[in-house]
Amino acid sequence: MTTDELAYKALEGLGAAPLWRFYGNLFPAQPKSRAVPYRWDWRELRPHLLHFSKTLSLEEAERRVLMLVNPGLTDPPATVNTLYAGLQIILPGETAQAHRHTSNAFRFILEGDGAWTTVNGERVFMAPGDLLLTPGWHWHDHTHRGDAPMIWLDALDYPLVNALEAGFYEQYPQRLQAVTKPDDAGSRQFLHGRLTPAWLTQEGPNSPVTRYTWQETERALDAVADTADGSDVDGVVLEYTNPWTGGPVMPTIGCRVQRLRPGFEGAGRRHTASTIFNVVRGEGATIVDGERLEWSEHDTFAVPGWASYRHVNTSASADAVLFSYSDEPVMRSLGLYRTEDADPGA
Amino acid sequence: MTTDELAYKALEGLGAAPLWRFYGNLFPAQPKSRAVPYRWDWRELRPHLLHFSKTLSLEEAERRVLMLVNPGLTDPPATVNTLYAGLQIILPGETAQAHRHTSNAFRFILEGDGAWTTVNGERVFMAPGDLLLTPGWHWHDHTHRGDAPMIWLDALDYPLVNALEAGFYEQYPQRLQAVTKPDDAGSRQFLHGRLTPAWLTQEGPNSPVTRYTWQETERALDAVADTADGSDVDGVVLEYTNPWTGGPVMPTIGCRVQRLRPGFEGAGRRHTASTIFNVVRGEGATIVDGERLEWSEHDTFAVPGWASYRHVNTSASADAVLFSYSDEPVMRSLGLYRTEDADPGA
Amino acid sequence: MTTDELAYKALEGLGAAPLWRFYGNLFPAQPKSRAVPYRWDWRELRPHLLHFSKTLSLEEAERRVLMLVNPGLTDPPATVNTLYAGLQIILPGETAQAHRHTSNAFRFILEGDGAWTTVNGERVFMAPGDLLLTPGWHWHDHTHRGDAPMIWLDALDYPLVNALEAGFYEQYPQRLQAVTKPDDAGSRQFLHGRLTPAWLTQEGPNSPVTRYTWQETERALDAVADTADGSDVDGVVLEYTNPWTGGPVMPTIGCRVQRLRPGFEGAGRRHTASTIFNVVRGEGATIVDGERLEWSEHDTFAVPGWASYRHVNTSASADAVLFSYSDEPVMRSLGLYRTEDADPGA
Amino acid sequence: MTTDELAYKALEGLGAAPLWRFYGNLFPAQPKSRAVPYRWDWRELRPHLLHFSKTLSLEEAERRVLMLVNPGLTDPPATVNTLYAGLQIILPGETAQAHRHTSNAFRFILEGDGAWTTVNGERVFMAPGDLLLTPGWHWHDHTHRGDAPMIWLDALDYPLVNALEAGFYEQYPQRLQAVTKPDDAGSRQFLHGRLTPAWLTQEGPNSPVTRYTWQETERALDAVADTADGSDVDGVVLEYTNPWTGGPVMPTIGCRVQRLRPGFEGAGRRHTASTIFNVVRGEGATIVDGERLEWSEHDTFAVPGWASYRHVNTSASADAVLFSYSDEPVMRSLGLYRTEDADPGA
Repeated sequence: MTTDELAYKALEGLGAAPLWRFYGNLFPAQPKSRAVPYRWDWRELRPHLLHFSKTLSLEEAERRVLMLVNPGLTDPPATVNTLYAGLQIILPGETAQAHRHTSNAFRFILEGDGAWTTVNGERVFMAPGDLLLTPGWHWHDHTHRGDAPMIWLDALDYPLVNALEAGFYEQYPQRLQAVTKPDDAGSRQFLHGRLTPAWLTQEGPNSPVTRYTWQETERALDAVADTADGSDVDGVVLEYTNPWTGGPVMPTIGCRVQRLRPGFEGAGRRHTASTIFNVVRGEGATIVDGERLEWSEHDTFAVPGWASYRHVNTSASADAVLFSYSDEPVMRSLGLYRTEDADPGA
Repeated sequence: MTTDELAYKALEGLGAAPLWRFYGNLFPAQPKSRAVPYRWDWRELRPHLLHFSKTLSLEEAERRVLMLVNPGLTDPPATVNTLYAGLQIILPGETAQAHRHTSNAFRFILEGDGAWTTVNGERVFMAPGDLLLTPGWHWHDHTHRGDAPMIWLDALDYPLVNALEAGFYEQYPQRLQAVTKPDDAGSRQFLHGRLTPAWLTQEGPNSPVTRYTWQETERALDAVADTADGSDVDGVVLEYTNPWTGGPVMPTIGCRVQRLRPGFEGAGRRHTASTIFNVVRGEGATIVDGERLEWSEHDTFAVPGWASYRHVNTSASADAVLFSYSDEPVMRSLGLYRTEDADPGA
Repeated sequence: MTTDELAYKALEGLGAAPLWRFYGNLFPAQPKSRAVPYRWDWRELRPHLLHFSKTLSLEEAERRVLMLVNPGLTDPPATVNTLYAGLQIILPGETAQAHRHTSNAFRFILEGDGAWTTVNGERVFMAPGDLLLTPGWHWHDHTHRGDAPMIWLDALDYPLVNALEAGFYEQYPQRLQAVTKPDDAGSRQFLHGRLTPAWLTQEGPNSPVTRYTWQETERALDAVADTADGSDVDGVVLEYTNPWTGGPVMPTIGCRVQRLRPGFEGAGRRHTASTIFNVVRGEGATIVDGERLEWSEHDTFAVPGWASYRHVNTSASADAVLFSYSDEPVMRSLGLYRTEDADPGA
Repeated sequence: MTTDELAYKALEGLGAAPLWRFYGNLFPAQPKSRAVPYRWDWRELRPHLLHFSKTLSLEEAERRVLMLVNPGLTDPPATVNTLYAGLQIILPGETAQAHRHTSNAFRFILEGDGAWTTVNGERVFMAPGDLLLTPGWHWHDHTHRGDAPMIWLDALDYPLVNALEAGFYEQYPQRLQAVTKPDDAGSRQFLHGRLTPAWLTQEGPNSPVTRYTWQETERALDAVADTADGSDVDGVVLEYTNPWTGGPVMPTIGCRVQRLRPGFEGAGRRHTASTIFNVVRGEGATIVDGERLEWSEHDTFAVPGWASYRHVNTSASADAVLFSYSDEPVMRSLGLYRTEDADPGA
């Protein structure tokens, strides 16, 4: 062996390695997400959800969820680099065990009626289009008293939290929490007219709005769309905000809803944030790094970080409405947010 | 003359004075506002407003306003130490000259329909109970196209701005501004569901909500009152917030609305902030430093800083609703806010 | 009487007044401070200070201070609109009674050695050029164990605090506080190298640096002046900062020190902040609204808000060094800061 | 196949997977870092550094660095979960190519004299114990004009930035940048006495102090150690701060220095932040999750996130001084910081 070879050998035993042999891998010219552009098909997946709702009990499953796994992110499974989406189903009469975790979570309701999530003692009810927050380390369990299956999009930042090695988890001593607060208090006290209870003060970094109802969201979309063209990339796009700060609903996840007018052809853009979309209604396509993802109601699709994208509403007569969430708040907090115009091609 | 007398004499010529002869006046044990507790009677004042609407043109008056002058603050006139309230009237067909000033201002609508204020190119419409902001250095003019007199409470922080010697004023070159934005854009884009246009960013320290409609305020009061007891001092009390920050609507003025349940007997309190109230509806009394101010619809009353107060709803069957504004944001920004339980007596 | 005259009469009894008769006074085109440009002459005032140090005991005086009263601001006395300066003297062997007030205060040491101020249990020592903070509601008393009179510039924001009706005052039960902290802990723990004790957290809005020593200030001036031209208005000008925030030392008062190179001829400027200067060393002049204020060591001078000013170092060979303080933090917090280039003439 | 088996099979083709088969892995009861406690031995590694300084040119290597690779984090290589440390050497007469990357970086100087880093046009000089910042996307190159090898600890957050898929890299068109600023301007303008140039304003999220000199750090340690016991976990521990904010030097990395008194036996603690230490001087041990890491001058050691640790100064007569850096700012920004008393055993 040469002296260099001997030195390389010795370094291994000392826990050291030559940087010059790793340089290009560690410092890429620009990021290339391991995640790929992908669309999950609601009409194909829904029957499987219904199937497992019959063959698997919630006692066995704790949560009955189909994870939407990005083909580029299978181990550990994730939907985009830092975020996860799943389709959860709960049947009339069922309950789901109370637990909590440091991962921030929310649900975006797709179908059904008559279920609620209890979050830190408050029953939060669900209707299609509602956004329900369960911020990190908040106890939550689910109960369904309706007549038909309840299905929602389940979102978590566990890929981020686990990558940061900050995940904690705890089960509640009983199956369900006691109810200690008025029903839907978080949304009823904070949702209307930018008015905030003056006897309360901020606790923790999360929004106190437990439920952003679709009813209010639709009113906002109507009111804004009448007055504004919106963004040439995203149309009329609104951010769900934390009443105490005006910022994102949770420190790691930002949520948005956007309306694309009939025939909307968005400009191309990219940014370091990774985004997951769910189609509230309408039909269209999003071109991501040259790949065309066709979507319709309740489909989910992923736009990886730094991928170029543009949205198209393929209907000449109907609006399309997209709900989305991303790790933009993380990128901004850490000084890593970057964005530019970019043509995704095709 | 003694040498001391000579020295005192000499000091005068040098622009100096002995602190020891002023000590007690400059450092009181606690503040005693020059303002006094006072109530302005809507039923008495309204006829005078109507009178001047007939005898005085807006060309003569620029603004036709009865100032509500605190008996303790006549020179310069003010309503409480830092804030001003007036009753403004404008007749069908009239317009009021466009101007701007560094003083922050707002209007709280008392009666009438069919008028608007144009604020920096946006027409902002008025209906009873609406709160319309005209933050510092924003152009504003008024136009009335309704059928009956329009009357509102006019609020400004000019006593503060002038005490800080920071007042600027400018007239617009034309009588009225050109309209450059959609009508009511500020409220339509920001008022609903805690959703904020994602393509906009904060400009300046003020709320972008040009109009907090009474319709939304009433919805908020209803939703909150169903779920919360509120404060034992103030009942169900809500703060109007700035969507970009979650804080007060302007850096010098905080606005609130509160509902006192039938028979409500508030606890006593005092704080260094000075407050002006206007009665939206109902009947009651506020005891301020031993003095009982009886109030009913549209009356205005003043609670000076560090005065003890408590609110009473004298009706056993109807809610009372109070709108109020104060300099609490100033006191908090400067580290001068202090509050404690205090019995106003009587 | 006409009906108008009757109406005006009636309004008086109702606590109301016609705005249209006050308009111009309340909304000036631009601010005109009641304060005037003025210089207080150290060489003239110092003998009077010494005189009273012999004829007046601290038991009688509580504090033995010559107030520097602006000719435009005699009732109540103030130096500029919101701030006060005085010259305080304490003799060897004397002590000054412990008290506290909500007014923020500091001392800037002019001459003497061997005295200390005890602030909330910490002895803070004094040497010429040192800046010692006694933020609002901090107990403070003085003790002098040196050999010669100790004289300092005493600064307070009581004109602001009293205008805002937020002044509280309390005497300590004993003449002097017990010492409960290491001597000069506040400056020793926070002053060096931008390093902050990691086991402490921010308490209140004020800087924890009880003493900014002249030794460190001079080092900073030297280090900066070697690398930077500074501002064309103010030369090499440094802001004393709060280690917890990077902002001003107290929420109502900002402190600065500036070095004007030999022959420096500053550009003209004005801003809504009011400023008091004290000359650390050197000779020069400041032209304020056409008036030339000549100054030399330890003189104090006032530049009112919105007055135009420019500084001149009249020496061709020696630096001039000015210490100053202003209400700029107030103006910025409240959205009232405005500045522009402006020629003071002369 | 059963229907369940068929469904599981079908899900794969649809990009979905059953959450219930992954639950425990994704939601651990508490975090267990992949990194292990480890110490890198300066006396063993230094000869290899010197070896490669003779056999490998900087033209070949771009940077000549031995990476300190945690045995638990070999692919990709990292020192703790989010951070990296390396030992870099540069010889008299050498230069290192100018480049920039979004990763935040700094150098902590171990030995040598006469080299500088040029950061965005400013030459920043190096002496042992100095901390030099090269924040994200700042150009930097190195030049050595001294007489002996220059060695420093190289720190980067690339494991975090790459995990967040936000890494960009660019080479400068020339080998070295032009010098456009005074030497060491960043530290000379910001380091002394908590005084900040008043004509500058904050740009970006990073500290403008390009160099925290050991001379100032030692003065701070001396001044603080004389007045304070410090923390029972960390002794006299100081945080390097950003003058504009009072917070950490960069948004992803916090830097500290601590002095352990002779015979210091620290209390046990753990937190979700991951930390890398470098020994400035002295001898001692840090017990991490039951493992005893003995250390002496210039050794580096890793304390993984949520590992329990306590520090011991094994000398009865000499202080030990540790420099350290961690991702605590990340954990705090994202709401993931958690800490508790914990006994590491042994």
